[in-house]
Formats: sequence, C-alpha cells, structure tokens
Amino acid sequence: MKNTIVGQSGGPTSVINSSLAGVFEAAKSRGSEHVYGMCNGIQGFLEDRYVDLVEIFTKPIDIELLKRTPSSYLGSCRYKLPDINDDGAKELYEKIFAKLDSMNIGYFFYIGGNDSMDTINKLAAYGAGKGSDIRFIGVPKTIDNDLTVTDHTPGYGSAAKYIGVVMKEIIRDATVYGTKYVTVVEIMGRNAGWLTAAAALAKGWDCEGVDMICLPEVPFNVERFVEKVRKMQEKKSSIVIAVSEGVKLEDGRYVCELSDDVHAVDAFGHKSLTGTARFLANTIAKQLDTKTRCIELSTLQRCAGHLTSRTDITEAYQVGGAAVKAAFEGCTGEMVALKRISNAPYQCTTELHPISEIANLEKKVPLEWISEDHTQMKQEFIDYAYPLIQAELTPMFVGGLPQHISL
Amino acid sequence: MKNTIVGQSGGPTSVINSSLAGVFEAAKSRGSEHVYGMCNGIQGFLEDRYVDLVEIFTKPIDIELLKRTPSSYLGSCRYKLPDINDDGAKELYEKIFAKLDSMNIGYFFYIGGNDSMDTINKLAAYGAGKGSDIRFIGVPKTIDNDLTVTDHTPGYGSAAKYIGVVMKEIIRDATVYGTKYVTVVEIMGRNAGWLTAAAALAKGWDCEGVDMICLPEVPFNVERFVEKVRKMQEKKSSIVIAVSEGVKLEDGRYVCELSDDVHAVDAFGHKSLTGTARFLANTIAKQLDTKTRCIELSTLQRCAGHLTSRTDITEAYQVGGAAVKAAFEGCTGEMVALKRISNAPYQCTTELHPISEIANLEKKVPLEWISEDHTQMKQEFIDYAYPLIQAELTPMFVGGLPQHISL
Repeated sequence: MKNTIVGQSGGPTSVINSSLAGVFEAAKSRGSEHVYGMCNGIQGFLEDRYVDLVEIFTKPIDIELLKRTPSSYLGSCRYKLPDINDDGAKELYEKIFAKLDSMNIGYFFYIGGNDSMDTINKLAAYGAGKGSDIRFIGVPKTIDNDLTVTDHTPGYGSAAKYIGVVMKEIIRDATVYGTKYVTVVEIMGRNAGWLTAAAALAKGWDCEGVDMICLPEVPFNVERFVEKVRKMQEKKSSIVIAVSEGVKLEDGRYVCELSDDVHAVDAFGHKSLTGTARFLANTIAKQLDTKTRCIELSTLQRCAGHLTSRTDITEAYQVGGAAVKAAFEGCTGEMVALKRISNAPYQCTTELHPISEIANLEKKVPLEWISEDHTQMKQEFIDYAYPLIQAELTPMFVGGLPQHISL
Repeated sequence: MKNTIVGQSGGPTSVINSSLAGVFEAAKSRGSEHVYGMCNGIQGFLEDRYVDLVEIFTKPIDIELLKRTPSSYLGSCRYKLPDINDDGAKELYEKIFAKLDSMNIGYFFYIGGNDSMDTINKLAAYGAGKGSDIRFIGVPKTIDNDLTVTDHTPGYGSAAKYIGVVMKEIIRDATVYGTKYVTVVEIMGRNAGWLTAAAALAKGWDCEGVDMICLPEVPFNVERFVEKVRKMQEKKSSIVIAVSEGVKLEDGRYVCELSDDVHAVDAFGHKSLTGTARFLANTIAKQLDTKTRCIELSTLQRCAGHLTSRTDITEAYQVGGAAVKAAFEGCTGEMVALKRISNAPYQCTTELHPISEIANLEKKVPLEWISEDHTQMKQEFIDYAYPLIQAELTPMFVGGLPQHISL
C-alpha cells in the first residue's frame, strides 16, 4: 500500500483544517500506513519539512480540535511552480518526483485556492508525461469563493457567516447615537465580490441591513458613490456601506490606489490591496461634512474559528474525504467540486472535474444578482448564500477561550 | 408607587442591555407600574423621546434576546449636562425635574461610563439642593474598565474575552507562511490600557501569545519600539503586537497624531484616535524592510454580541438589579460598584459608592502589573482578568445569525 501526502497552500480559512481532517481520516481508513503532511506546502516539502500525521493525530479529540482550529495547521506557502518548459524547471520537477518516490507516495493532495490548483495541475501534467503512477487531486479551499466549476468553495460559508454576523453588530453599534454617521466596511475580495455580497445576509426582521454594497464586478465611480451616500443620508442618519477591497475605477485602477498606502506585490503578481474604506470614508467626510468611520475586517474574516458555519465545516471535511476516494480509485489531475442539488431543502454532493478546467480561472458574482442601481444584492444571491451559513460548530472553550491544536 | 426611568449613555458594549434587563426586571418586581426607557439617554428625554418598557418586554424571551443584543437597546448619547452654576443651567435642570415629576418618577437610573456618571452626579446634586425625593443611581458600564472604586466594569470582561479570542486567531493567521511578518493590532483605550492588556490572555498551551503589548500608561518611543521589533525578529519571523490607540509620546502627543488621519473632537473634548497601528506598521515596513499588516479591532471589540463572557453578562444584570434595590431602599447619588472577594474561586459582590468619588476620574493599569521592559503583562494582570472572561452565553442563532431585539 502506497503512502499519502497532503499540503495546505494559499490564504488561511476557518475550515481548511477540516479538509485536512477529511483527507487524513479517509486515507488512514483506506490503509495508508503513513499520511504525511507537508509543512508550508510544496515549498516546505522541497526543504524536506514534513511530518507523519499518523503519529500526531492519535486521539479522537485531536481531530475535533483540528476541525475547530482556524488557519492552516500545516502552515502555508505562496510558492508558484515554474512552467514545465521553463529553464531549469525539469530539474525541480524531477527532484519533487524523486522525493515522492523515495517516500513511497501514491496519493498527493493539495488543499488550496486558484494558485494551489495551478500547482496540482502542473504536477499532474508532469507526472502523466513521465508515466508516474502518483495520483494528484486538488481539494478546493478559499474564502473568496472564486473557483470555477464548484458551486461554492469550502471556507466561503464560514467567512460569509462571519461577515453577516459582524455587519449586524456594526449596524447596531453605528445607529446608537442617532446622529449622522457613515460607516464604510472593507471586505476582502480582489476581483470577485462574493465576500462583500455576504454583507447582504445581515438583513432580517431584527436588522435593516446594510445600505450599500459595492462589488468589484461593477466599475466604481467615486463621485456617483458620494452622491448616493448624500441622498441616502437625507432619509436616515446612520449609513453602513460594505465595500470590496478590490473595487476598481472605470480605467481599471483599484480605488485603494487613490490612497497613500504602500501596495506591495506578491509572488503571483497580486497587488496588496488596503485602504479602500479609509479613502472612501475620508472622501465622504470631506465632501459631505458628516462623521465617518472605516472598518477593515482584515484577517479576522478568514480566521474567525470561533464563528464558523457547520455546513461549511462538514463540506470541507467531505471534499477531503472525496479527494481520497477519487485518488484511491485511480483518478488524477482532478479537483473535487461541490455540486448543489437543491436549495430548499439544501442538498449538496461532490463531483470531480479535470483541474485544467479550473486552474487560474476566476468565478465572479453574476451581474444579474446585483440590483439595477448597484447598491444591493438580489434575492437570487440570498437564496444561494443562505444555506451555506447555516448551523454552528461550538468551539471547545477552556479558560474562556476556544482551544486549538498546533503542530 | 413611583415610576422608574432608565437611560443608556456613552459608547456601546456587548452587555449594556443586560444591565437594562436587570434594572427593568428588578423595578417591575418591586412594583413600578411604569418602567420608562429614555431613547438616546438624557438628550432624547429632553426631547420627550421615551418608551414604557413594561409594554414592550412582555415575554420571557424578550429579556433573553435583550441580554444577547449588543450596543444600547435604547440608543445612546454623548450629552454633557452644564455645570449647575453655568448660565442658563438652572432652566435646563428645572425642565428635567418638572418632566420627571410629571411622569411621577421616583427612581432614575443611568447606565454608562465616566461621562454618564458625571450626568448622574449633577442630577443628584441638583435634586438634593431642591429637596427632590427622586433617587439617582449610576449603573457602571464601559469596555474601557477605567472607572474608579469598582473592581472592574461590566462590559470589560466581554471585550477582554473578544480581544483574547481574536488575538489567538490573528497570531495563528499571521504565522501561516513562516515568513517575516509584523502584525500591529490597534485596540481601544484612550488613557487606560485595560483592553490592550487583555491581549495577554491569548497566551496558553496552544498559543505562544502576543510578542509585545504597548499601553498608554507607559510613554511611547517610536525608535525604541522599532528597535525592539528588530531584535524580536532576529529570533522569530512572525511578530504580533497589541498597541493601544491611546499610546502617547513623552511630550504628551498621541502617536496617532504623527499619522495623516483626521482627528475630530467630541462633545467631551476627546480627540478621535485612529491610525496608531497603521502609522507604526508603515514605520516598521520602511525601517526594517519587512512585510507588515495593521489591524484595527475598531467597534467590533465593543459590539461583538456573538462572543460575550457569561460572567460579564451575569454581573451586568446584577449591577442593574442592585441599583434598583439601592434606590428603592432610599439611596441616591451613588453608583453600584463590583467588589471582588476572591480570585480563585472567583467571587464578586456589589456595593455602593458616592458618585462624586467616581465621576470624571480614570483608573489606569497599575504600572507594577507591566513587565520591566514594557512588553508584557505580569501574572498579577492575568489573575485579575482571567475570571472576568470565563464561560459563554450561547447566542440564539436563527438562519445562521444571532438574533437581536430592536426598539
């Protein structure tokens, strides 16, 4: 029986470790003697940093703690494998496959988002080219929900729930004085507005909801935005706005580039986006003479392990298990996707898709789910997102704080 | 039987409505036919905006939802009553007392922090001067924990718990790549560092804790701070720092004044503080050539009703009830305080203190609870804060979100 190896890559989520739990338990139950975990993904693996999870997770409570531990248990990386035809690439790929063979690996799982699927895609293609029998399967994960093919990504439901919950709380906080007040909340999402759209979930019988939602799918115009706020404030004093960090002007520049923050660029060429809400709050304060506040949800929205969606946790575990099933049954170069069967009652299953269909593509919020005036989400989005935030997984509180498990 | 009136004032907390529940239930059970709630505190009351809570809270679940609803249910204000000897002040006070008499008010409760106790102090003094038999009692509330006389303030425990929990999650998120990274987290607290100190609670067997804690009690030196970070980063790559929004330079200026943010001033003359973490993160990025991130916990730390301390909720309810008991037994011009009897097992009771001892004074973190190098809290602080964050009050989730009650 061949061994299994699994890695985590890309940005943290609250449920990425549930997928790790799913891979681990499924691989172990199918007979893998060793289930190795790469430390810091493929980058750490190249430096011989890995552990045997079979030796670490010995008690059932370890798995329960793992499911409640946010951010990647094994550590992560943002390492981009070179194109197979690049200079020196062959050496690197040969090194990886030699290491995998020396560890008697038969099954390779990578839990991650777009960039991580690119890694799986390249490894599977290289393996196929050289006739390797190692199976490479991608396990989807990203709060951004921007992977194609899959109905949604594990990680999104919990982030969406967190955003819905804190928007309710922020709205309540912001209305307390009854005075003129504009709150601009900045939410993650570089090109896809799924997370920002989740602010719409705050609305209910006990909350009037956010007043405006600005997604990167719609070109942003600062003047029109300020004018909308001015009109809204004629009718109510406290205005709460959810804005994506990735909103762009019609000329393609990010709105945050109008601010004076430093914008670094990462290994995948992505600009660091920050300062959108601050820029907009300052602009409103100057032009409308009203008190403003900007709130960046920052990393809290992706690592709030104390507030997860049980639906999301369960699905994250399931995609891990389904990946193992696929690999052990002979599949390779595929990603596990979630396929929604029905909304009410919510039913969802898993299926496989060739990873080449997925890597480096982005799924955006359909324009027809955004209201005509570009300020709210339509019911279609609510129907889509609502099932994903249902139910809770109670943290294990010890001494007043949720307990985690660490490597 | 005389009627009761209650108001909420100052900044929101997660548990201020538990004190409202305590006042309401105690006053009703002692026979008040009407328990009026001022909308937006004394300011709304002056505009005849109030409700009868007896007509509103008719079912037991209303009270349970109230306890789980963050931010002031009745709305708040930042209204400063004039000094009794100021021009025109007599007219205003006479107006207030005439309204109270016309409503047959015998008991007046104000739930708030320092500035709110100033209001109670002035009303009680004016009432005493004119021989009014209305009893005025202050109910303490502030996440800042800066009221004198009381061991701690309701609201602090939940905010401290929130800070402990999210710092654990932020630390976990920030270490995921294993790369050089400095995270500066800005926490509320103008002059007292109680909230920032709560970051120390994150440390445990499953978390190595924050690397530096900067309180406003200790003069801040930007150069020394950067040098400390540089030294820390020689030993570990991810550094997480908790810094109070109120840290001040030796010359008395706030560190955030070194940034380019707008700093408005409120009715009590308090400058709006923001941008401390951003300024420090940018300074570190420039001087140490390392990746940085700033996170402002912003209003989330005071309105996170989804994550409260049950100890805090219970005590908030108790101080409300104790205020009613005191007033109905004839006390006036006093504030209910919490008196700690023992740490382990934690035992705490209530007592009364003349409000004139409390109003406009601030209780700071004792310097002897801060480590010699000004980077960590000593065990004395942990022993003090630990009991206050214990146990949880489970939110009532409906449709995936905690339910609130609204006026």
